[in-house]
Amino acid sequence: MNDKKLIGIDLGGTTTKFAIMTEQGDVQQRWSIDTDIMDEGSHIIPNIVDSINHHLQIFDMEPKDFIGIGMGSPGSVDIDAGTVTGAFNLNWKGTVYPKRDIEAGTGIPFAIDNDANVAALGERWKGAGDNAQDVVFITLGTGVGGGIIMNGELLHGVAGSAGEIGHVTVQPQGGYLCTCGKHGCLETVASATGVVRVARDMAEQYAGDSKLKKMLDDGDEISSKIVFDLAAEGDPLAVKVMDRVMYYLGLAVANVSNTLNPKYVIIGGGVSNAGKTLLDQTTNYFKQFTFPNVKNTTTVRLATLGNEAGVIGAASLALQYNN
Amino acid sequence: MNDKKLIGIDLGGTTTKFAIMTEQGDVQQRWSIDTDIMDEGSHIIPNIVDSINHHLQIFDMEPKDFIGIGMGSPGSVDIDAGTVTGAFNLNWKGTVYPKRDIEAGTGIPFAIDNDANVAALGERWKGAGDNAQDVVFITLGTGVGGGIIMNGELLHGVAGSAGEIGHVTVQPQGGYLCTCGKHGCLETVASATGVVRVARDMAEQYAGDSKLKKMLDDGDEISSKIVFDLAAEGDPLAVKVMDRVMYYLGLAVANVSNTLNPKYVIIGGGVSNAGKTLLDQTTNYFKQFTFPNVKNTTTVRLATLGNEAGVIGAASLALQYNN
Repeated sequence: MNDKKLIGIDLGGTTTKFAIMTEQGDVQQRWSIDTDIMDEGSHIIPNIVDSINHHLQIFDMEPKDFIGIGMGSPGSVDIDAGTVTGAFNLNWKGTVYPKRDIEAGTGIPFAIDNDANVAALGERWKGAGDNAQDVVFITLGTGVGGGIIMNGELLHGVAGSAGEIGHVTVQPQGGYLCTCGKHGCLETVASATGVVRVARDMAEQYAGDSKLKKMLDDGDEISSKIVFDLAAEGDPLAVKVMDRVMYYLGLAVANVSNTLNPKYVIIGGGVSNAGKTLLDQTTNYFKQFTFPNVKNTTTVRLATLGNEAGVIGAASLALQYNN
Repeated sequence: MNDKKLIGIDLGGTTTKFAIMTEQGDVQQRWSIDTDIMDEGSHIIPNIVDSINHHLQIFDMEPKDFIGIGMGSPGSVDIDAGTVTGAFNLNWKGTVYPKRDIEAGTGIPFAIDNDANVAALGERWKGAGDNAQDVVFITLGTGVGGGIIMNGELLHGVAGSAGEIGHVTVQPQGGYLCTCGKHGCLETVASATGVVRVARDMAEQYAGDSKLKKMLDDGDEISSKIVFDLAAEGDPLAVKVMDRVMYYLGLAVANVSNTLNPKYVIIGGGVSNAGKTLLDQTTNYFKQFTFPNVKNTTTVRLATLGNEAGVIGAASLALQYNN
């Protein structure tokens, strides 16, 4: 028999998503529950266990029907121990033991990795990555995260920080202070809040006519989406802001590519909804900052799975139990 | 029996080095021959075959005593096909077939990779890398090259350019033109010629008292060694030049580390002979440009094997035949 299934879990600060998938990566069932972060997040793992067991009953399935469960989590993940530390948006203060507790609660083998790595696996497997051996994934959201797959394997590095492309220094002098404590990180300019920060700063020195300038002067709430939408409409300040963000993003993507020569660099996350314009501008700077063999063989792409990447990639973590 | 041997070959533009090693990495025999690049380099492979067969006779050994031969080569290496293209310093104009020809000539399995990757393997195995799973090697010589080992495996990328850290863009605006056709590559400032170029440019705008300035004004021949030696003596211009070079090197090392979080970044090549000063200054900038988890877990080190790294790492390529 070769039709055992995988379970993928994407654990987020507001919602926990689940999927039952085939080994080939076809989604057969999907559901989600609210993430209950009350009481220091102590309900999160029991709720996950209950939800899995409940759905197995509904679908008339048993633990032996599954190869394993994979989960993507915020925080600092120890993949060998199966623990999570410092996931502040889950209200988890100390170290939590998802592997121990979910295996005990479901009777199914369990694997875990951080959310950006798991999304990278998903995009590589079923999204823009065409299942290539060498894929870099960058997600532009509230923060900027990433995951790197080389020789078909996820990279973690000596202390789990491989793929933290959001903290590549793109502005070595005069860069903004990042939440990490360092200056000039990609995240300070290319995250959702980073784009707004760049817009505010450039608006101060901008004297021409601009709807974006007027909104900022009026104290209107703006977002990266508003900035990019205005850029698409030709607003001259918004065009400049977007160009500056794409310059730093293109530089970072280029240097990751000069270092790794992946087949694809995939850009996802909410900020990447700017779509083709973002892809074209990033690619232009990417080409300016890559040397010929990389320029000719590495391709920048937009993610295609959206929010699904996490749950699909998480399920693929469980494939390691398939012997 | 578990005492089969490895042969390592480091093919360079002037000398070809050989070593017979144990599987554990102990060097048992070493010799070298001149690399005869006459007649479009057509003697190189036959000379290697003859030299191996001759030494096997001297040492009273047979092909069956060996697990395999590994070789590091300049040029663009196709590791699967075992071919080399565009190795201009060997006078090889087209594609050459070392694997086919050396296996036929010696009866021993043969593997090949490019010289920087092979040196990375050597430093990781028997040098500063402590055989760690995640090691980045950067060599500062006539050019700047590199090799990356993650999860214990060499990375090549989709078209063999992984590890080309010399072409990371460190000066996105106003950088020097590189031989690769792009501007602002690390190689343009941190190679032996790059250091001299930085010195010449900074001397033009330097008005103070400096032996380096005087040497350049007098038209004396200078080298990266002279610049770094003068910096060690406290020559004020040379100190500034070295600081600028270390700034760019530290930035590149930091961003490779922010991306990969290796256990070690090892710096080798002739320019790295500046030793502890170079290491300290690079580490300072590395710390400025890395985020906390990488700063605390990735360490910059100097290479320890010198010219031996190539032949030792080459021998390790042959371990893949050990089944």
